[in-house]
Amino acid sequence: MQRYKGIIAYDGSCFSGYQVQPNKRTVQSELERVLAKMHKGSQVKVAASGRTDAGVHAMGQVIHFDSPLAIPEGKWATALNSLLPDDISIVSVEHVSESFHARFDAAGKEYRYQLLQAPARDPFLRKYAYHYPYPLNLEAMKQASNYFLTGPHDYTSFCSAKTEVKDKVRTIKDIEFITNGQMLTLRFIGNGFLYNMVRILVGTLLEVGCGERSPDEMPAILEKKDRSAAGKTAPAHGLYLWKVFYPLS
Amino acid sequence: MQRYKGIIAYDGSCFSGYQVQPNKRTVQSELERVLAKMHKGSQVKVAASGRTDAGVHAMGQVIHFDSPLAIPEGKWATALNSLLPDDISIVSVEHVSESFHARFDAAGKEYRYQLLQAPARDPFLRKYAYHYPYPLNLEAMKQASNYFLTGPHDYTSFCSAKTEVKDKVRTIKDIEFITNGQMLTLRFIGNGFLYNMVRILVGTLLEVGCGERSPDEMPAILEKKDRSAAGKTAPAHGLYLWKVFYPLS
Repeated sequence: MQRYKGIIAYDGSCFSGYQVQPNKRTVQSELERVLAKMHKGSQVKVAASGRTDAGVHAMGQVIHFDSPLAIPEGKWATALNSLLPDDISIVSVEHVSESFHARFDAAGKEYRYQLLQAPARDPFLRKYAYHYPYPLNLEAMKQASNYFLTGPHDYTSFCSAKTEVKDKVRTIKDIEFITNGQMLTLRFIGNGFLYNMVRILVGTLLEVGCGERSPDEMPAILEKKDRSAAGKTAPAHGLYLWKVFYPLS
Repeated sequence: MQRYKGIIAYDGSCFSGYQVQPNKRTVQSELERVLAKMHKGSQVKVAASGRTDAGVHAMGQVIHFDSPLAIPEGKWATALNSLLPDDISIVSVEHVSESFHARFDAAGKEYRYQLLQAPARDPFLRKYAYHYPYPLNLEAMKQASNYFLTGPHDYTSFCSAKTEVKDKVRTIKDIEFITNGQMLTLRFIGNGFLYNMVRILVGTLLEVGCGERSPDEMPAILEKKDRSAAGKTAPAHGLYLWKVFYPLS
């Protein structure tokens, strides 16, 4: 048995999220279906760095799986891509030690959220960026985002009320605002993110940007530890799991 | 009655082409459905510069229609966009003289064809560029394309055998090769294009680029006036109707 780490990209538009669900098309079920085919029907379990929701995209999701097949490291990506549907792409596959775990070893993640600031919608970006044609006060948004960068915080207010994990303390290391023409990208790097956390952060920052909230409200929202204190959940289709960080080994 | 000229963009992925067909989702039928709604059920006929096939995109398709509604010129785009599905976007609408005709007045067109030259496929571009990971001899392709620029030619060999129009003489004014990272865009400007003509030109130029054909075969292919003399029809999803030219009036 050999353990493999894979980096994968997918267009989340036509998936009911990453994780297997009965009778739904998910990224994990497509991966496991194709691996089972390669292994003559034996089930091969795929573990990922974390789930992504329906409509959320990935540029650098990380998975691992074990296989006894004598396929050279460099051939795995081509073999898998030839069997996978074209909305998933295997970017790379490499040998890792059998102790590697895509989820438990992840030391941090980068998410990006794309906002299209054009006055008119763009039919080619309708599934890849949130169309937000209203003016935004970027300075106020940056000021608000600085409150999150002051160290670990309890993000109970910024995650779905359905979140099952108990420890809701996370550290956001960086929030960057990148403007490229009419596209505004918000880049979040942190040691981990709770369910819907990036989308609620974006929704809240948008409310700051359009003047509905003041940047100085952020500490009080964190303090309340109540989902209803924060802003709306921004739509899934603007969100990308961009990169997963692992300790150098 | 006032005549309006509209510039529209659409993602062709989910349409059975531009033109109305029974029981199919087409761009024209969406436009006419929405205009009928605005006109309390009366049919409003929409004419376009030409059809596009299933899967073909448009950045600057041109249409015209007549309306008695007292809507200011500047409000038409917003009104139509608010009713249209999000894979069609009205870029602009302006008053034109009642003699303007989107199809008969068109003096030329620009089409672009996008080729993704990356080794791995990109799940986000699967409907927006033809993935062609093989090396291409651009110099040979440019040499071949020069044969088309020598004046008017009979393009019988470069259009679908189903083409109904009799006069198959067209003038291609320019073919440009634009490289941007791993994306190669072929830009065609001409006084008009026959059914499938750009896709067959691209398919033939690709056969030159990969060494299957020599650039010098082009004059003989034109000469034969036989579809089977030219190369394959490149897939629809790489093609964009980019712009329609009208004489300055």
